[in-house]
Amino acid sequence: MAQYNVYFLPHEKKITVDEGETIIRAAMDAGVHINASCGGEGVCGKCRVLIEDGEVGEGISEMLSKEDIENGYRLACLSKVKSDLTVRIPTESSIDAKFLNLQATPRKTARIKQLNLEDLKEKGLFVPPVEKIFVEMPVPDSADNEADVTRLVGALKRDHGEHRMEFDLSVIRKVPDVAREADFKVTANIARPVREDGKNRIINIEAGDTTDHNYAIAVDIGTTTIYGQVIDLISGEVLAQYGDFNAQISYGEDIISRIVYAEKKGGLEKLHSLAISTVNKVISKIVKKSGIDIDEISTITFSGNTTMTQLFLNVNPRYIRRSPYVPAANIYPPFKAVEIGLELSDHVTALVYPQVSSYVGGDIVAGVMGSGMYNDEEVTLYMDIGTNAEVVIGNKDWMVCAACSAGPAFEGGGIKFGMRAAEGAIEDFSIDPATLEPMNVTIGNVRPIGICGSGLITTVAVMFEMGIIDNRGKFNRDLDTPRLREVDGVYEFVLAWKDVTGIDRDVVLSEIDIDNLIRAKGAIYSGCMTLLSEVGLSIHDLDRIIMAGGFGSYIDLEKTMTIGLLPEIDPEKVTFIGNGSLMGARMSALTNSIRRDVVATLKKMTNFELSETKSFMDNYVAALFLPHTEQNLFPKLKARLEERKRQMQQ
Amino acid sequence: MAQYNVYFLPHEKKITVDEGETIIRAAMDAGVHINASCGGEGVCGKCRVLIEDGEVGEGISEMLSKEDIENGYRLACLSKVKSDLTVRIPTESSIDAKFLNLQATPRKTARIKQLNLEDLKEKGLFVPPVEKIFVEMPVPDSADNEADVTRLVGALKRDHGEHRMEFDLSVIRKVPDVAREADFKVTANIARPVREDGKNRIINIEAGDTTDHNYAIAVDIGTTTIYGQVIDLISGEVLAQYGDFNAQISYGEDIISRIVYAEKKGGLEKLHSLAISTVNKVISKIVKKSGIDIDEISTITFSGNTTMTQLFLNVNPRYIRRSPYVPAANIYPPFKAVEIGLELSDHVTALVYPQVSSYVGGDIVAGVMGSGMYNDEEVTLYMDIGTNAEVVIGNKDWMVCAACSAGPAFEGGGIKFGMRAAEGAIEDFSIDPATLEPMNVTIGNVRPIGICGSGLITTVAVMFEMGIIDNRGKFNRDLDTPRLREVDGVYEFVLAWKDVTGIDRDVVLSEIDIDNLIRAKGAIYSGCMTLLSEVGLSIHDLDRIIMAGGFGSYIDLEKTMTIGLLPEIDPEKVTFIGNGSLMGARMSALTNSIRRDVVATLKKMTNFELSETKSFMDNYVAALFLPHTEQNLFPKLKARLEERKRQMQQ
Repeated sequence: MAQYNVYFLPHEKKITVDEGETIIRAAMDAGVHINASCGGEGVCGKCRVLIEDGEVGEGISEMLSKEDIENGYRLACLSKVKSDLTVRIPTESSIDAKFLNLQATPRKTARIKQLNLEDLKEKGLFVPPVEKIFVEMPVPDSADNEADVTRLVGALKRDHGEHRMEFDLSVIRKVPDVAREADFKVTANIARPVREDGKNRIINIEAGDTTDHNYAIAVDIGTTTIYGQVIDLISGEVLAQYGDFNAQISYGEDIISRIVYAEKKGGLEKLHSLAISTVNKVISKIVKKSGIDIDEISTITFSGNTTMTQLFLNVNPRYIRRSPYVPAANIYPPFKAVEIGLELSDHVTALVYPQVSSYVGGDIVAGVMGSGMYNDEEVTLYMDIGTNAEVVIGNKDWMVCAACSAGPAFEGGGIKFGMRAAEGAIEDFSIDPATLEPMNVTIGNVRPIGICGSGLITTVAVMFEMGIIDNRGKFNRDLDTPRLREVDGVYEFVLAWKDVTGIDRDVVLSEIDIDNLIRAKGAIYSGCMTLLSEVGLSIHDLDRIIMAGGFGSYIDLEKTMTIGLLPEIDPEKVTFIGNGSLMGARMSALTNSIRRDVVATLKKMTNFELSETKSFMDNYVAALFLPHTEQNLFPKLKARLEERKRQMQQ
Repeated sequence: MAQYNVYFLPHEKKITVDEGETIIRAAMDAGVHINASCGGEGVCGKCRVLIEDGEVGEGISEMLSKEDIENGYRLACLSKVKSDLTVRIPTESSIDAKFLNLQATPRKTARIKQLNLEDLKEKGLFVPPVEKIFVEMPVPDSADNEADVTRLVGALKRDHGEHRMEFDLSVIRKVPDVAREADFKVTANIARPVREDGKNRIINIEAGDTTDHNYAIAVDIGTTTIYGQVIDLISGEVLAQYGDFNAQISYGEDIISRIVYAEKKGGLEKLHSLAISTVNKVISKIVKKSGIDIDEISTITFSGNTTMTQLFLNVNPRYIRRSPYVPAANIYPPFKAVEIGLELSDHVTALVYPQVSSYVGGDIVAGVMGSGMYNDEEVTLYMDIGTNAEVVIGNKDWMVCAACSAGPAFEGGGIKFGMRAAEGAIEDFSIDPATLEPMNVTIGNVRPIGICGSGLITTVAVMFEMGIIDNRGKFNRDLDTPRLREVDGVYEFVLAWKDVTGIDRDVVLSEIDIDNLIRAKGAIYSGCMTLLSEVGLSIHDLDRIIMAGGFGSYIDLEKTMTIGLLPEIDPEKVTFIGNGSLMGARMSALTNSIRRDVVATLKKMTNFELSETKSFMDNYVAALFLPHTEQNLFPKLKARLEERKRQMQQ
């Protein structure tokens, strides 16, 4: 895709964006404010900009006069970049010159990390848990009428150096006919053991040479969503992916309410069968999308948090929510997928990621494996922020981990207009420090209906940096704007007036919302601090951060540090891996050695129950500020705030 | 039970019998002939004997005159031994003095061999495939909230030296609740590996200490009958046994017809489910009879011939009946009993005896193991004569084996009045050499309705030794008795006239019947000869014979040698083990080391396809005589025949 430079005046800020990007998003990314309260649907007409040079697509609206259009004015929210551009923000809708440099820093998002397939291949790790070997069995005659399976095992030993072989009953059932169908030339599907001294198990046999067709499925069983991928084990590529809501959702949004339901009569079986049915639906979709034959799938790998794993496998999760929070198992044995009701061939082996503890589950272990953290020297902070938040700190030699009771604020829970990252959610925000007019950017560029996690972080960060809210999360009561108001004793700020929203109400941000956000980020940050202090390290010892989860790669890293969710670190050292759980499941599907590594990794991961860890409460209370009671932990922010103060006093 | 001596005059033969035995059976066992054609129901009245001393019960009939009764005459078939007796056979119903010593030798049956439990215990072999260990798990607290299964495995390692542990998914499901139910004191059911370097697998967990309740089931899957036993793994005793007809019988009496049916659409599934349903019926009966809790069964061991094993496990038997007769597998993996539809607890592990070849199956391997032959120095001939006949020769160092196409003559097949060993079957026979009046003894002492395998052998042997039939199996055409007659060109001998039978016809033995018997015994004997010659040995090298199968312990060994079914050997060296297949299954249930031994034994067992072995046809043709073309192979019989000839010429 072509890329173009957009040069904003009078700010003199330049940014490179993809062709087709809207000017308003380009401005946001460059740290340039344009009044725009309607979310980018051309409704409010406030985002009038002058295209001084270059070509834009669209951008014309009835909100603009004929004369404006002739003079080169366009609405920034509707204009799409088609060439290099010079764009002037008109004085009346821009900030005073004095404030030009007070803008928030340009948007910085994390690099997105992918599985490095070439690296896996080079290291010889591209050996899946089930391998296919083409074998020519000796044809029986009256001088040699050994049993068919014995004949197969013998040929594997003689011609392929395969030893320590076992086989499934289902293979015995298939061998006689399959062998004769293909003149005793067959492909054996061999499940590899975790340890080299384990047994190799023939789990399937196919007529002829099918070694170039070997597929696996990786599934992430999330509390909210279940994602699946079909993986080509020859190329390593994902052939199809699909996600669907976990059908258990009707029985509780979060883990605790699921466990409560599972404790009712028939509840466990119900939740188990709902998870299975969702997985079956996902399997059916991705198999269809990828166009493969379902019988050519040899393994399915699952990862999920401890509760989801137990519910999925029909294991009572009752004790997960009761002190001392004991899960049923850490490691799960491989089993046949059909055994739990999955609609796959008889031979398909199911592998399940192991758990560290009741609240640091297989999804986190999978992320640690899939991201490569388990194998790296650098001291890494791994965070997975979804319905829950889990944190792992360490490197290839040691790891500490904990679950933080962050609550669902980042997914919209406990926030008055909070919502998931869906169409109409404010996902980006800026504000004119002089007029306090906002610039709302919504997902889908439609009228705002709420605010999602990344929008919430950015909004609070910008307002804090602009002095609109203080370090306790309270609005500056002296602000002269009708947007700030008190309703039923609670102060709130109107992000979008009713006439430009997609609902028949104003979309607001209240002090209760801010308080909930601070508690959530405080729980996570103090979790990190507690883990670090337990191993005698500080924030400064972190070499890098890996972010995983539904939280999104779109999140503005500096804003995240401004509110004190992430410690201050060079944004270049932050990578985003998206669904780390799914990435780990895919990694396991591709390379069997990870199953051995994961057992070793598990032994290195020391779990902390934060509620049982003395220093946690002190750390938590200290974190209930923006960004923290100790501003020295955030030196760059501190410098910016001081610079702002200095400029305001000029 | 009390035993008494019965002294027969004028023969001067004495025999010891159990109290309550009939005089006619005592006479038969002593080799004393009494005319008795009605099978022992007191119908013909011919078996009048004089009780000269001692006391008998019953024996009085309307066939006896009042005077006879007063003088001490009784019917031998109705009289029961109640004390030491002297019994005189009256001249009119006895033989001439001349023939007194021409009687067949006294009945000699084989010793019955049982499993030697004490020996197993002494050798430390009393360790079943699934062992129970009582474990006290550490109770979790906030300082130790490891997963339940990890806690269990840890305690097994620390307190019981258990290593290399695996566990089933079902165990994960049970551990949390079971452990808490019994204050973390539980019993682990651990499946032991075949090889010592294999994994130990926890397959079940029970609350509290249940180590004194451990049971197994052993099942013999016969073509005709399926037998099951409940075995107490603490004492080694059989708590209950039950046998039922294999429900597959409606789809064919023999193996070949079952395979033919299995090849039809849906046929295999039908036969599979019929076998499963019969086994479920047997399990239900024996569990009820033994009074145990079905959940306390830990393993089930199966043995059966190759076709029965494949049908039972839903493995296509098509290639078993086609040259080069390749079975699907030799060794079967352990699997969960529920996996094939058995009505047992989820955790029950099913073990299946391995097969040597398509026609020497797991039933024979089980017999070789159960009888101890696999472990003995003596060169042994092991024979299993049922619907098919299989022969194994060898000792602990080597074994050769073959299936003989004997046909079903010994089970009544191809014999005009042939029948299984059921009520009304002539099972024993003697004949008056002068009058040619028979002495028929039937099962249940009722009117004869047919003749069973052991009856057939004895009848033909006695007739041959008396010169009634010649060494080609043809009746002496010069005999002066209405019992010998020609019907539709076939000579036959009336064993019981219509008026004393239980059917409305005469019960006869024809030359076609004799011919079928000779072919059957010829196939078995020539199989032995062929195996021996292949290893460079002769009949004289055999140290002992072990007989197994439905053939019965009641069979008269000398008669069996007279017709040339068994080679001539000291009857003391013959043992009968009954259902060798079931005995082997029970042995496997009791001691896990047998599973390792059986793999080693299997490698020692060299299979011969007789039809592909050059010398077999010559051996077979030579064996189609009574006892054989080469009478020198039967020196004792030869001496008796010569003695008889000498006496007749006096």
